[in-house]
Amino acid sequence: MKVIVTGIDGYSGWPLALHLLARGHEVVGVDNFVTRRRVKEVGSWSATPIPSFPARQKAVKEILGKEIGFYRGSVCDYQFVHNLLEQEKPDSIVHLAEQRSAPYSMIDVHHAVTTQVENLTGTLNLLYAIRDTCPRAHLVKMGTMGEYGTPNTDIPEGMFEMEYHGRKDYLPFPRQAGSWYHWSKVFDSGDVMYASKIFGIAATDVMQGVIYGIRTQEISDRRLLTRFDFDETWGTALNRFIAQAVLGLPITAYGKGEQRRGFIALEDSMQSLRLAVENPAQPGEYRVFNQFDAAYSVNELAETTARVAKEFHLSPVIEHPPDPRVEAEQHYYNPIHEHLPKLGYHRTRDLEEVIREIFHDLIHYRRRLEARRYVVQPTVQWRSVDSRPAIDGRVPHAHPPASPVPGEPASEGPSA
Amino acid sequence: MKVIVTGIDGYSGWPLALHLLARGHEVVGVDNFVTRRRVKEVGSWSATPIPSFPARQKAVKEILGKEIGFYRGSVCDYQFVHNLLEQEKPDSIVHLAEQRSAPYSMIDVHHAVTTQVENLTGTLNLLYAIRDTCPRAHLVKMGTMGEYGTPNTDIPEGMFEMEYHGRKDYLPFPRQAGSWYHWSKVFDSGDVMYASKIFGIAATDVMQGVIYGIRTQEISDRRLLTRFDFDETWGTALNRFIAQAVLGLPITAYGKGEQRRGFIALEDSMQSLRLAVENPAQPGEYRVFNQFDAAYSVNELAETTARVAKEFHLSPVIEHPPDPRVEAEQHYYNPIHEHLPKLGYHRTRDLEEVIREIFHDLIHYRRRLEARRYVVQPTVQWRSVDSRPAIDGRVPHAHPPASPVPGEPASEGPSA
Repeated sequence: MKVIVTGIDGYSGWPLALHLLARGHEVVGVDNFVTRRRVKEVGSWSATPIPSFPARQKAVKEILGKEIGFYRGSVCDYQFVHNLLEQEKPDSIVHLAEQRSAPYSMIDVHHAVTTQVENLTGTLNLLYAIRDTCPRAHLVKMGTMGEYGTPNTDIPEGMFEMEYHGRKDYLPFPRQAGSWYHWSKVFDSGDVMYASKIFGIAATDVMQGVIYGIRTQEISDRRLLTRFDFDETWGTALNRFIAQAVLGLPITAYGKGEQRRGFIALEDSMQSLRLAVENPAQPGEYRVFNQFDAAYSVNELAETTARVAKEFHLSPVIEHPPDPRVEAEQHYYNPIHEHLPKLGYHRTRDLEEVIREIFHDLIHYRRRLEARRYVVQPTVQWRSVDSRPAIDGRVPHAHPPASPVPGEPASEGPSA
Repeated sequence: MKVIVTGIDGYSGWPLALHLLARGHEVVGVDNFVTRRRVKEVGSWSATPIPSFPARQKAVKEILGKEIGFYRGSVCDYQFVHNLLEQEKPDSIVHLAEQRSAPYSMIDVHHAVTTQVENLTGTLNLLYAIRDTCPRAHLVKMGTMGEYGTPNTDIPEGMFEMEYHGRKDYLPFPRQAGSWYHWSKVFDSGDVMYASKIFGIAATDVMQGVIYGIRTQEISDRRLLTRFDFDETWGTALNRFIAQAVLGLPITAYGKGEQRRGFIALEDSMQSLRLAVENPAQPGEYRVFNQFDAAYSVNELAETTARVAKEFHLSPVIEHPPDPRVEAEQHYYNPIHEHLPKLGYHRTRDLEEVIREIFHDLIHYRRRLEARRYVVQPTVQWRSVDSRPAIDGRVPHAHPPASPVPGEPASEGPSA
């Protein structure tokens, strides 16, 4: 199949491209490199050095013997998206090109607006461009398990049979997101569901759990590594914990640490996206996958990290600073996930094993962590505090300016 | 109380300002006159001539003896909103400044994106500006009954006690909007609910039914009339039916005409908004009002219009062209509306009586309808048809260019 991957330069876009290529699919990528710029904006970088995109393409050619097509541009530019789809006529589009950081969306009003505007615009552009150029193409849209929040009930896959005042209907399950970013994904879900209905688009809406890991089977060589963010804006809690352990800092598990979320290994997330691509929705069908395979609490992540750290002669302590997020610290959590197993999904990776693998890579790139050690502590407060927005749209820099690692080129500038 | 009305130049903003002034409140208005420009964009105008804003202020001074404060600007400009609230420190903000036409949002991708981006940006800007300048102010946010769609169950006021797999929670009722515009209001509801939670903002989210009427008690003089749109993009079905009758055209009730929606008279919508302002939500409270008082089918509106038309020696026939919207033509419809009656709301106007009043005004302005008679038939198809978007962002003009009415100046240009 021919698959367009928007956001191919990103954390999951890159390994997805490699995974699809390895399974014999044709891959055309799209990116505008905005994540590289925005990670730099908060004074950080990826722990793994990320080559320019042409260098990544070259490595794929040399190591895997495959070609990746590429268009540089923004999904927020309708004419670009229209021309792209008209030119390529893909079978599937996996749409990953969205602002993906919840803390980034919470910095101030400008980051809130940017997040919601960019994410909605890109999705609407794709929906119309599919309608007008390749109406049979299957859209696989990256959403998040965070759309649901933490209701005191089971969480179905998107839709549920509900009863109210003695009458029944089959409706979208209530969403209660916990950041402007998570709301932007809720809104995208509304638009994709509606486009499926009025335009007849085949759509899979992926409620993605938190992904962990740097490597997949295809990443046999360090030149093929995907990015690994560990700062508090772009990195996940687990990424930050492992970076803290490597740096000899305490692991900071917010609040009581009993918040639970759904997780999935990078390898298994790629498996899931491939299953969605290879088993497309029908025209006019809107289906939702809860894409995770286990729920962990923050404490379980912190404790597993601390346990594995000992194998590397590290002995981090676990601290519990106040939670900067507005979230329930103790709650019921039981999302259903049956759609992917029905398509043949099976778990291949284990949390502890993947954490061990991450430690190996981070210790290799320890100097890159050292050079950015000031980015791993939380600075964005989500509550109503006196944080007057930066009117010029820039992020207030809580951190000192970044300095390059001696002997290691800063390789993350946008590629030419 | 001091009340900021965003969108004060619009259909409901203007009579709300007059209503609040008459009850002794202080009113400060905001508008960027974009609705005037956009109605012109589709080749139409208001049946009632709308003076420039300074002329409207002058008429209020002369007729009601009251002053209206005014700021020209866009709620999409954060700095403008911030300065406005910092300067005025209002008790309440009634936020009506949104793109309000469903058909406009369905024209093409650019109108879809514009609608969602503008509506979300304005609301986010207001939420942050309230947090940072007047955190005790009460936000009354205009939404729509259309957020709910037409589920096969009763519709609660925003939230409901639900049960799923034997466990219960109190959650937002599922939304199923029927246009990009209606989805933009669903999205706003998510953002307002979330801001209420994290910023502690007092918020009333108004699920507004379709409003009918031109006049309220305060509109004693034609110089105080509000706008009345009758084209298929900016006018409601009822407005179009009455205009069709006055023009001697058939009344076009889409499809079977059994689609039911909630309605409320302009006078009673103003009463409701005033009750919300005078009985504010508490800090951190997010409450939802289903603001309508009767449900009518399209056929009931068409038949009532035809019956009243006879009193004016008009005898329109009712036709049923195919429905250009994607909506259920026969469905259950029973939204609950208890919150406003608990605050003292009581219905003061009757559908037939208001239709009669509209006929009086439209017959007075018949020449303005005649000059735009080509705008009352539907041209926007909501389904997937070969309607390649206008790439330059302009609306494709299905209508011939508008010509001015002899002897009547085109008074709707943006005021200086």
